[in-house]
Amino acid sequence: MRGAVIYGKGDVRFEEREDPRILNPSDAVVRTVATCVCGSDLWRYRGINEVPEPTPIGHEYVGVVEEVGDAVRGVKPGEFVVGGFRTSDNTCPVCRKGAHANCQNGTGYDGCQAEKIRVPNADGTLVAVPGEVDRDLVPSLLTLSDVACTGWHGAVSALAGPGRSIAVVGDGAVGLCAVLAAKQLGSEQVIAMSGHADRQEIARELGADIIVSERGEEGSALVRELTEGIGADGVVEAVGTASARDQAALCVRPGGMIGVVGVPHGGLKDDGLFFRNVGVWGGIAPVRRYLDQLVQLVVDRKINPGRVFDLQLPLADVAEAYAAMDERRATKVLLWP
Amino acid sequence: MRGAVIYGKGDVRFEEREDPRILNPSDAVVRTVATCVCGSDLWRYRGINEVPEPTPIGHEYVGVVEEVGDAVRGVKPGEFVVGGFRTSDNTCPVCRKGAHANCQNGTGYDGCQAEKIRVPNADGTLVAVPGEVDRDLVPSLLTLSDVACTGWHGAVSALAGPGRSIAVVGDGAVGLCAVLAAKQLGSEQVIAMSGHADRQEIARELGADIIVSERGEEGSALVRELTEGIGADGVVEAVGTASARDQAALCVRPGGMIGVVGVPHGGLKDDGLFFRNVGVWGGIAPVRRYLDQLVQLVVDRKINPGRVFDLQLPLADVAEAYAAMDERRATKVLLWP
Repeated sequence: MRGAVIYGKGDVRFEEREDPRILNPSDAVVRTVATCVCGSDLWRYRGINEVPEPTPIGHEYVGVVEEVGDAVRGVKPGEFVVGGFRTSDNTCPVCRKGAHANCQNGTGYDGCQAEKIRVPNADGTLVAVPGEVDRDLVPSLLTLSDVACTGWHGAVSALAGPGRSIAVVGDGAVGLCAVLAAKQLGSEQVIAMSGHADRQEIARELGADIIVSERGEEGSALVRELTEGIGADGVVEAVGTASARDQAALCVRPGGMIGVVGVPHGGLKDDGLFFRNVGVWGGIAPVRRYLDQLVQLVVDRKINPGRVFDLQLPLADVAEAYAAMDERRATKVLLWP
Repeated sequence: MRGAVIYGKGDVRFEEREDPRILNPSDAVVRTVATCVCGSDLWRYRGINEVPEPTPIGHEYVGVVEEVGDAVRGVKPGEFVVGGFRTSDNTCPVCRKGAHANCQNGTGYDGCQAEKIRVPNADGTLVAVPGEVDRDLVPSLLTLSDVACTGWHGAVSALAGPGRSIAVVGDGAVGLCAVLAAKQLGSEQVIAMSGHADRQEIARELGADIIVSERGEEGSALVRELTEGIGADGVVEAVGTASARDQAALCVRPGGMIGVVGVPHGGLKDDGLFFRNVGVWGGIAPVRRYLDQLVQLVVDRKINPGRVFDLQLPLADVAEAYAAMDERRATKVLLWP
């Protein structure tokens, strides 16, 4: 089978790779139906994170089960499945608390931008989509593998809900999905911070009540103006840079909560937060925790997170997908095997 | 009238001071019925925080209203009142969100270890205790001025409640009150970390289900053992030192929440928290937010936070009160004017 391999900065190749096969009784082999490129893949593509050796890359997928190990009970060959970017057993004490990203037996993986993948912990990771899956639902189902659940986790961590105002810092795919989540969770006011007309439009479609296109202190001042002068009850920080974290701190009210889902590349200064009673919560998204609920919302056509894809390419053109995202010609690229 | 003045490290004197009087229409003058020494007063007494000039000290009190300014409507002369260690107007947008410690018109004050005090923002700060106040309730009512509400805020910030396990780091007055709060809020399991037999006993009386007397990694390992091997759902950090914060981080489970109420003297390293999905929330307690509820619980004799006082002295002996707390001969000292 064929799949993407990153060799180093700016160098992703589509190559013949060994077919994945069942290694453990809890494994499944999945033939991908769609996969995509994550903003976090770009850290290596841009040379910010090192690539010590050629490495299969990608961690988002939907597909059809081809084969399962002897211990797998929850999914079977032929089923259309979604799974998170980290595997989880869904049974350990940490998973039972809903913190699946930190599952005691969890694993990460790279190499999903490929025709086939091996999924460890299949029972605790994969969720079968009921019935026939319409092709137009595939993009939205694919987002559940990472960005939609990550955005959802950001909104949950920012305590989004009825009566709450939520601002979202970051208009990438995760930020846009956080807008959707904040709205779906019943927040009273959802403020998307975005300077790009195309992303503003998506944010509006996904549920933003108000767009703030200014950045820095000016943008924060506008958010405060929209929230009785004090800042939003919750802010989702969906970037991970020090400047995004500062922005979030400027937009949140005293006593409020910053939901962080941008993988930190630059520390959050916490000194002032204590004296403002501002909390920080979040981390790597526990995808499995949200998956049943979000699959149902997609199948019922109540949410359309697939809207974040603004370019679709054949998987064979994976190198172009990276280039398009790196050069900001695309927000997020879907790849069809 | 007479009151305490701190001159510098180890030097607190009881002196004649000018009588407070109404300066603004929203002020009240209160004759104190009881006051006390706060752990945070010791930062100056121990020379860790500077004392640039002789300063009246103290920020916890209960008392009887003597006089009110023209604008005061909520309390009147003769009423027994409790007020927080920061004033709040209870009407600004920040107060309406329950973040009274950050009130837009709030003020702090020093000088409550005295026979009389001036309370700005009287309407938004003071709560009158209904009916005749039995003398034996005074210690508990006095704790509501700071430590009981601070402990309560720690438990609320750690998301204490039904189904949750809560560990408390710090067995000072605030930590003990956090134990009480965690229990009152319905937490399933309340773990007090304390190495002192006398404080362990108080912790048990106030609601601790389990005492862990070990410190450091050994103590954290025990907390994890008590919580399915993963750590508590929430941890209250009621000290403020770097080591207490590290301890809290070691005791909390993935996806859990650290409620911080110890004023930070040493930063919290947040790098690992993101990857463990651990949150940090809290700060200076919004006393007014909790005051109505807690006054009622005290008056109904449902809680007894006054149990944290283990020494009572005449106000004139305030210097000895500081010495006793500094030398750890007492946890918290109540002073009777």
